[in-house]
This record gives sequence, C-alpha cells and structure tokens, in this order.
Amino acid sequence: MNDSRINASIITIGDELLIGQTIDTNSAWMAQELNKIGVWVKRRIAVGDTREDIWQALDEESRDSQIILITGGLGPTADDITKPLLCEYFGGKMIVNNEVLEHVKNIFARLNRPMIERNAKQAEVPDVCTVLMNMRGTAPGMLFRKNGRVFVSMPGVPHEMKGIMTDEVLPLIQREYKMPFILHRTLLTAGVGESFLADLIEHWENQLPSFIKLAYLPNYGMVRLRLTATGTEKEMMEQELDAQFNQLQQIVKDHLVVTEDLPLEKALGDLLKQKGKSIATAESCSGGYIAHLITSIPGSSEYFKGTVVSYSYDAKETILGVNHETLETKGAVSEETIKEMFDGLLRVTTADYGIATSGIMGPGGGTEDKPVGTVWVAVGSRKKMIAKRLQFRHDRLKNIELTAANAMLMMFQFIRDEQE
Amino acid sequence: MNDSRINASIITIGDELLIGQTIDTNSAWMAQELNKIGVWVKRRIAVGDTREDIWQALDEESRDSQIILITGGLGPTADDITKPLLCEYFGGKMIVNNEVLEHVKNIFARLNRPMIERNAKQAEVPDVCTVLMNMRGTAPGMLFRKNGRVFVSMPGVPHEMKGIMTDEVLPLIQREYKMPFILHRTLLTAGVGESFLADLIEHWENQLPSFIKLAYLPNYGMVRLRLTATGTEKEMMEQELDAQFNQLQQIVKDHLVVTEDLPLEKALGDLLKQKGKSIATAESCSGGYIAHLITSIPGSSEYFKGTVVSYSYDAKETILGVNHETLETKGAVSEETIKEMFDGLLRVTTADYGIATSGIMGPGGGTEDKPVGTVWVAVGSRKKMIAKRLQFRHDRLKNIELTAANAMLMMFQFIRDEQE
Repeated sequence: MNDSRINASIITIGDELLIGQTIDTNSAWMAQELNKIGVWVKRRIAVGDTREDIWQALDEESRDSQIILITGGLGPTADDITKPLLCEYFGGKMIVNNEVLEHVKNIFARLNRPMIERNAKQAEVPDVCTVLMNMRGTAPGMLFRKNGRVFVSMPGVPHEMKGIMTDEVLPLIQREYKMPFILHRTLLTAGVGESFLADLIEHWENQLPSFIKLAYLPNYGMVRLRLTATGTEKEMMEQELDAQFNQLQQIVKDHLVVTEDLPLEKALGDLLKQKGKSIATAESCSGGYIAHLITSIPGSSEYFKGTVVSYSYDAKETILGVNHETLETKGAVSEETIKEMFDGLLRVTTADYGIATSGIMGPGGGTEDKPVGTVWVAVGSRKKMIAKRLQFRHDRLKNIELTAANAMLMMFQFIRDEQE
Repeated sequence: MNDSRINASIITIGDELLIGQTIDTNSAWMAQELNKIGVWVKRRIAVGDTREDIWQALDEESRDSQIILITGGLGPTADDITKPLLCEYFGGKMIVNNEVLEHVKNIFARLNRPMIERNAKQAEVPDVCTVLMNMRGTAPGMLFRKNGRVFVSMPGVPHEMKGIMTDEVLPLIQREYKMPFILHRTLLTAGVGESFLADLIEHWENQLPSFIKLAYLPNYGMVRLRLTATGTEKEMMEQELDAQFNQLQQIVKDHLVVTEDLPLEKALGDLLKQKGKSIATAESCSGGYIAHLITSIPGSSEYFKGTVVSYSYDAKETILGVNHETLETKGAVSEETIKEMFDGLLRVTTADYGIATSGIMGPGGGTEDKPVGTVWVAVGSRKKMIAKRLQFRHDRLKNIELTAANAMLMMFQFIRDEQE
C-alpha cells in the first residue's frame, strides 16, 4: 500500500491466551503506541508455550515485518520456555548480566523478601542480545537483530511491558527508522445505524483522496467514524485531512456527539470542567459502573461528587428516600421510582447534575411487561429532569455497559443543549 | 503432542484491531468454549482489512488446524472486504439467500426502521457456503469446506458471534470430530509470589505424569495454579487429576483462597450466599469498581445491598457521616477516615458485612508521606473491623483494580475465618 511503510508484528506467547483465561490487552496498547509514531502493525499473533509454534511464528513474522515485538513467556517458573528458545534462535549462549542481577537484588531488598535461585535466573540472558532494563519488574527486555530485522522480547505483565516500550523500544524505533506519518481524525455519532450513515456519506466518501481511508467503528449503539491519512508530506496531509473532516462533520451534524476520539466519560468530564459544574449518580441496575467509568478519568474528583448504588429496596428508601409505597405499587423499574431516585440523589449530594438508572439486567428477573433489558434512565439538573425507558437485548454485562453508555450520552446531550 | 488432538485457529479481521482501537475479547471467549469441548486453539491471529493478508492467513492457518474460525469484516459498509474475498477463496459466486433476506426484513420491521439496499446486501452469500443463521443480527455466519478443513466466518459483534457459535458451530464440531478430553483444575493463592510457589511445589511438580501440565497465572498480586490433563481415557484422567490436585492443595494450604477457577467477586458472592449474609461497600478511591464487579455476577441482588461512592468531602460527610474535623486534620486517606466511612456504611445500610476504601490512585494527588498508590481498606462485620494500609505502584486504572481485588480478598478471608 505504501512503500515507505514500516511494518511491525506482535507475537504474544502463553497457553493462557489460547485457552481464553487471559484477555490480551497488551496488543491493543502496543498497537496504539506504534501507530502514534507511524509504525503499521501488520499482524498480531498468539501462540502457546510450544517450541515449534514460537519458532515458526518468529520465522513467519520476520518475513513481512521489520520489527517483531514479543511479549510473555519470561516468568521465573518452569512453564516458560521462551528465553532459552530465543537464545538458540539467535545463536547465542546464556550469560549472567550483572546490571540485571543488581537490579533484581535491589528489588528483593526493597520488598524485604528473600531472593531465591529462581529469581537470580532472571539475570541470565543470551549473550547475543542487548538488555533493555525493566524498572518495574525482574524480567529484563531483550533486543535481538537478525537479517536486518529487530526483535524485542518483553514480559507479558502489562505495566512492565509498557515501561520497557516507553523507555526503550519506542525511542529506539524512532531513531532507527524513517517513518511515514499516520494521522487520524475521529468523531462519534449516536442515534443512527452504520448503514444509514454509510448512505448519508457515500457521495463524500467516494471523493476522498486515495491516501485517506474511512472506517466505521460501531459500539453500544453508537458509531465512530475514523479518517486515517498515511504518507510522507505531513503538512499537506493535515490540511487535506482537516478539510475532509470538516465536511464530514457538516454532513453528519444532526447525529454528532463529539469530534475527538474520546470515551464518553472523558467527553462528559471535559464538558463539566468547561462549565465548572459537578455530577453525581444514583445507580441501581448499572451497579456502580457509571461511577467507575467516570472515576477512571484522572482529575475526575474535580467534578464528580459521588454515587449511591441502591441495589436493594432498603438502600433506595434509607439513602435516597424513595417511598416504600412507590416501590411496592410501581416496582423498582418504573418511571415513578427513577424520578424519586433522581430527586433523592440531588438531595443527598451537592451535585449540579445527576444520572439515575434502574432496570433488569438478566439473566433472571424479567417479566412479560418488563422483560430482561428494560431500563429506566433519568438525567437532569436541579431545574429540569428527563426520564426515558430503554430496551436492550443482550447478556447481563453487555446490558450494564449499554445502560452506562446510553445514560452518559443522555447526560452529555442534556448539558450540551441546555439553555443557560 | 497428542495425535488425536483437534486444532483450531482463530482469525480476527479488522484494521481496528491493528491500530489498537478495539480490544479483542472475542478470541478469549471462543477459546474457552472450544476448550470445553476438547478443541485445542493452536494459534490466534489478527489481520487488517487487506486482501493479501486475509488470503495468506487462510492459507497458513489451514495448514496446521482442522478448524478455522474467522470473525469480523462482515458489516454492511464499504470497508468490509471479507465476504467477496471468501467467495473467491472458496471458488463460488454470490447469490441471495432468501431465508436470510426474510430474517433481515423481519428485523427492520420489528425495529420499525426503513430497510435500505445496503441492509438487503447482508442476504447475499457465496453459493459454496452453508448459511448459519444469526438470530441476533443481520450478517449471517457462513461455513465453508476445503481440503478436509472446516472454515466458519462470523460477524465480529460479540453477542452475534456468541449466538452463532453456541447455536451452530460448537454442536457441529462435536458431531463431526472425535475429540480428546481436556480437563482443568484451578486454585487461587494469595500472599506469596510466583517464584516462592514454584520452589514450594517443585518436588510435587517433577512427579506429575506427562499428560498433566501445570501453569502459573499471576494477577493482582495473587497467583492461580492450573492443572491441565489431555487424553482419551476420561475416567483415569479425572482420578489422577483429582489426586494430584488434592496433593497440590495440601502443599499450598497456607496460601490457598479458592479451589475453583472463579473470579474473586464470584467466590465472595458464593460465600455470602452460603452463609445467608449480605454486603455493602463504601468506595472512595475505587470509585464504584468493587460494586461493579460484585453486581456483574447474576443473582448478586440476593446478597448485595448497595454502595456509597463518596468521592468528595461532602459526600463523605452528608451520606456516610464522616466528621468534617477528621477529614480536615487526618485527611481523606487515613486510618481514622476509613474507620468512620466503614461505620457510616453499616449505619446507612442493613448489610451484615462492609468494605470501605480510600486512597490516591494517581497520576496526581500524591504527597511525600502518602504517595500515589497509598490506599486504606477496611473490611468487617457489625462486630469487628480490620483496617489496613496498602501501597501500589502502578497507573490509575491498575491501582483501582488492585484496590478492588485486595479489598475483596480481605473481605473473603475475614468471612471465611470468622468465628461463628
């Protein structure tokens, strides 16, 4: 596609990935970081702790990629076969690296734990590698070169891998390769499906220059549109990309939420900060998930007051002051209850805005007129409140995620469109 | 390794995986389900929306695997090239499948949305495939056969893929292949590192029969040990596996938490159900994440009362009744405050047990004597409370996860060891 493109492959090693015990979050993070500096991830592959499979992956990935990043398989226990295999693959022999040994000793001294033989083994590395120090753990990163390819092996523990990538690998790649620029622009739409959007923007899409690519990323009933430009002339690309992105915003303006690649909780937080206002949540069916999303953003204490997860009738009554009679006659999942939860929330907190949720997430608890996936959401301020009934059709966890995403979307639109 | 082994490969298609915009949770679920019926996942590979890369992946994966499962690339928009490519790869031509067309029409009728040309296109499939109906969406699954291999293409939307796998693919595999049995036993330890455990169980590990494999799975400062037996004689395997697993439990008994492969929130919930008791949480730094984990378990409303996320001073004071003076003189992250939060929680809820957290998750907010990662956790009942200061050294999200995991561990051990 682009001759100057630098390709990377990511190899993750470990049986736990192949039996599904671990969800691989490392690869997504690595891909994002590589992408930022202009490296294209061509393939990601996961193999088990099996000699032939690892060997084959090294052979195959180095055929098409200049950079091969390997994570996992470096722990101190017997099921890890990666290090001796790498030593053999690159034709070296194992030696003790004194810098790593000192580092491991220091870690155990600091933790006040005895160091055993097994830990000291972490300092043994193939003599043909360059050691990349792991400041957050005991297993060092290792860099190998073969046939003009760069191979880096790192531990699979996410924060250790991230440390080595940030401190060592990414700067090294930037020094050694002349990269094309990869630029993105992303916007978020809500309320319309992928096919509808595709029809709406077809004409515009057909006139895009060949170096700009469009992608549809649907999630939680919303659709992200992403433009990606690849090339060497950064200034021209930026100008063209911004011009195209502006046109796109105009075309989808009725369905537009944000024009940045932000999670909704970040967009909501930014809006609150900008207005100098605060928020709180009263969560029943979402069980604290909205609070978790909001507080996952650094600095959220500036605008987030708190949450009441009123999972039981008595928590709804004693903390939020919902009437016992309302719960008995209308049920916990009703317009009446959600309104009383909302009112109670703004009574027990000092927040300017509030979100309340109550629903049936499944698998049990559904009835004929309130099937699994029925949710009431209320959002509003001290002056005005909107309550809405939503219906989802998924499993428990997905229903929780959908409730959170749609409640935050309602809150975002409420604040954005509010008359001062 | 085992001649009767049935290998599967999972191919996920989509640029969004290669730029890190999407975390692949599908593969882990598929691997778990395949594993349960005795299929070994040999490799997982992610490639972009690029013709040559998809083609090459199909060639490569069918070399070593009898079953090739493909997800993604089937949406109704222009960036999806998978369906025509599959048609060409398997030597067919596109035809309209009337059953799918009816199904798509019904979905749009039910949603009361107009159906456009693009949606009808979902009903076009290669004439060489067997259609696998997708009851949760518009894009059908497609099954192809070539050189004795089975290929299945499914949409990447997780709940649609899961539906097709459960309804069609897994039953088909069980009908067509004679599989070896793959059995697992997993236990969770806490309080000791991977190396320490490895030394402790080395002697036992060395005497394991060759058909049983041990794996270490460290997470959140705890370590899971998993035994896997593979073979054809199920009864013998089960007996030997259970005998070995019992020995292992004896050896690690001082560090043992649970002897099942359960997340902590499930183990805690099971313990509460078994005792007929309830729980509530008062979360500051964990921001509702413990509540989210607990409520992610179906049926948790049986034992979970609710949560107060007291993120601000005033929520701590007004809802939980923490003294203003305590906050001013000792700070929110202190032994005194966590105790008052705990007391307040059991005052405003009817729960038997409570968990309270307060800490500094970063990146900002740290001081010399309370650096980022400092956390106070209190757990207890109406009779007794334990408070503990913990110190983590990671990024914000990881610190939140570690706080939740360690607080739930403390609560689990408190309830388990409690004198009646």
